[in-house]
Amino acid sequence: MEDFDKESLFLHERLQGKINIQNKMHVRTSYDLSLVYSPGVAAPCLAIADNEEKVWDYTIKGNTIAIVSDGSAVLGLGNIGAKASIPVMEGKAMLFKRFANVDAFPICLDTQDTDEIVNTIKAIAPVFGGINLEDISAPRSFEIERRLQNLGIPVFHDDQHGTAIVVLAALINSCKVLGKQIGKISVVINGAGAAGIAIAKLLKTMNDLDPKQRADTYDIIMCDSKGIIHSDRDNLNDAKKEILEITNHKNKKGSLQDAIIGADAFIGVSMGNVLSADDVKTMAKGSIIFALANPTPEIMPELAYAGGAAIVGTGRSDLPNQINNVLAFPGIFRGALDAKAKRITLEMKIAAAKAIATFIRNPTRDEVIPTSLNERVAWRVADAVKEVAENTKW
Amino acid sequence: MEDFDKESLFLHERLQGKINIQNKMHVRTSYDLSLVYSPGVAAPCLAIADNEEKVWDYTIKGNTIAIVSDGSAVLGLGNIGAKASIPVMEGKAMLFKRFANVDAFPICLDTQDTDEIVNTIKAIAPVFGGINLEDISAPRSFEIERRLQNLGIPVFHDDQHGTAIVVLAALINSCKVLGKQIGKISVVINGAGAAGIAIAKLLKTMNDLDPKQRADTYDIIMCDSKGIIHSDRDNLNDAKKEILEITNHKNKKGSLQDAIIGADAFIGVSMGNVLSADDVKTMAKGSIIFALANPTPEIMPELAYAGGAAIVGTGRSDLPNQINNVLAFPGIFRGALDAKAKRITLEMKIAAAKAIATFIRNPTRDEVIPTSLNERVAWRVADAVKEVAENTKW
Repeated sequence: MEDFDKESLFLHERLQGKINIQNKMHVRTSYDLSLVYSPGVAAPCLAIADNEEKVWDYTIKGNTIAIVSDGSAVLGLGNIGAKASIPVMEGKAMLFKRFANVDAFPICLDTQDTDEIVNTIKAIAPVFGGINLEDISAPRSFEIERRLQNLGIPVFHDDQHGTAIVVLAALINSCKVLGKQIGKISVVINGAGAAGIAIAKLLKTMNDLDPKQRADTYDIIMCDSKGIIHSDRDNLNDAKKEILEITNHKNKKGSLQDAIIGADAFIGVSMGNVLSADDVKTMAKGSIIFALANPTPEIMPELAYAGGAAIVGTGRSDLPNQINNVLAFPGIFRGALDAKAKRITLEMKIAAAKAIATFIRNPTRDEVIPTSLNERVAWRVADAVKEVAENTKW
Repeated sequence: MEDFDKESLFLHERLQGKINIQNKMHVRTSYDLSLVYSPGVAAPCLAIADNEEKVWDYTIKGNTIAIVSDGSAVLGLGNIGAKASIPVMEGKAMLFKRFANVDAFPICLDTQDTDEIVNTIKAIAPVFGGINLEDISAPRSFEIERRLQNLGIPVFHDDQHGTAIVVLAALINSCKVLGKQIGKISVVINGAGAAGIAIAKLLKTMNDLDPKQRADTYDIIMCDSKGIIHSDRDNLNDAKKEILEITNHKNKKGSLQDAIIGADAFIGVSMGNVLSADDVKTMAKGSIIFALANPTPEIMPELAYAGGAAIVGTGRSDLPNQINNVLAFPGIFRGALDAKAKRITLEMKIAAAKAIATFIRNPTRDEVIPTSLNERVAWRVADAVKEVAENTKW
């Protein structure tokens, strides 16, 4: 076992879990006790029974979300189950607290049945102001999220949208650095899982929202392990069929290598070492490479640069331009909670991406995105998301 | 609205919920981040995937319980629903933290269907080391608790057992003060809901465990709103029929007033003002009165004393001998978590009651039970419960 793993095991064992519950007030006297518990607690209970909106004023709901996973697609580890997923959900809860003062509690489910997951989330919803779905495998994650959009609180699958938002932010700034228009670049997304599909949808929305940026030359091509996703393929699941409505309008066919010829940007949410320097050489001049597979990117930055890439980002903290969800999710939920939003809309996601992008005043090739530990980003994201949410008709 | 209620509303509104989540470690550097989250978190995840018992070492499970309610029988307020029950569950969570350093999180369910409640608790169980069922109306609460006894973690309905344990503790010390033997006294329990039935069962077990204390004269009689529960009644639900197996062996009939003639102890878990001083006069000499209805007891202490009672306890903090669950539940779960207990057995409940009783070295008529805010009680209870649990074959 490597020293790094040993250090992590040691830390987890000593901490015995990475979060805990604290009381907001010290219960010192029996009068204190009678106010926070019986009989005084009856007053807020009755106020909420009389007007359920008061639950936002008198309880933890307004600052509390659930991080819900079934342990079916945890990090790059796959289907390791509910109990083994707990350390990830606790870590995520730490980040919510650390960056946006959101109280997040891990709910790891002992079921991977779509109906049971939906029903369980509905049942436990009252105490939460939002639900962060995490590490649930596609395509179930799509259906679960879709079926819960009318729950009355935001339900947001971070593996999809969090990644998409930060990718979009990095792409906005990359275009700025390179003097390109985001609506006119051609993008190849490799990996048609949850994240890839969310990226395509968000890019599409970004362009729809700003008609000036649309252009005939604009296109997105998605690839999976069998190459380009096109309408003549007979091995596409529903999610891939749906994505054809907004991608590959010219119905291009072939491999990933065929797809990227002349492309402006490559976004990898797939697996390590699928792209070579020679592949990058076939792309348009001044190409953008976001190779997000972890821990081994689709192509290492030095190879991408050797192939002529202008800007390279990865998912790794030890390399420049780390595309990390933590830039998005804490601020998004902070803003949603502050606005008592009922959903995380596409407009809120776009606002989040723009807030992350504009956080960097003068982006450069080595800094198209803030660092993951920058504590001020989440609050900019929160304000941008809150403003959109408050102007949304629910 | 009374000043007391205003004070409670003000406090709840200012605090916006009474508990929050804290990180056990400050995430300062990107190395910290890589240990508590990706990629370092993979090490404990894989260790748990390999051996699921490790979930107790590497996660919050070992110190975390859920307080689960459906809001159907909240305090004396009745069926006010999930959202309105949240302030109570938060208050309870505060007490778990305050008295036993247990991390308790409120889970308030948007369903009152027995099957759905059982399934939801099963689904969310992985992250919890115990489940405290709270304020769920009888008889559903009996069934829910019974069906979850093989969940692998303790599932404990506090309204039943917490009350029963503290009543038993007070009864043990009352007998000590009065020179009576607990196995030879006759007890009348008024109120055949969750708490009344649990009290009867626990008294029965207490006697079974110590055969020397059993006596022919020993008996328990339960009353509901229609009087004594006896085998010729045709209006008994299943729980009341079942309780006949351990109560009223002589099949006595009549009203509450008939029941208490000659009785040594009256335990009220019913409603205010059902007992008069004249009623108490018909009881045995040196009678024990625990009048636990809140806020108005079955009989006020001064009336009970006027009727000849020797020892009087209530549920109220402003009167001597407060019978308060908080003396039991924090320590019980602390002990159960420390022993990784799979259930809260009757033996563990008896041990808890004895630990509460013996906490008072020299009980007197005005002190048969410790005060609710005594910080040392829970740790005595925890140790006693832990010892029994560790010697239990699961």
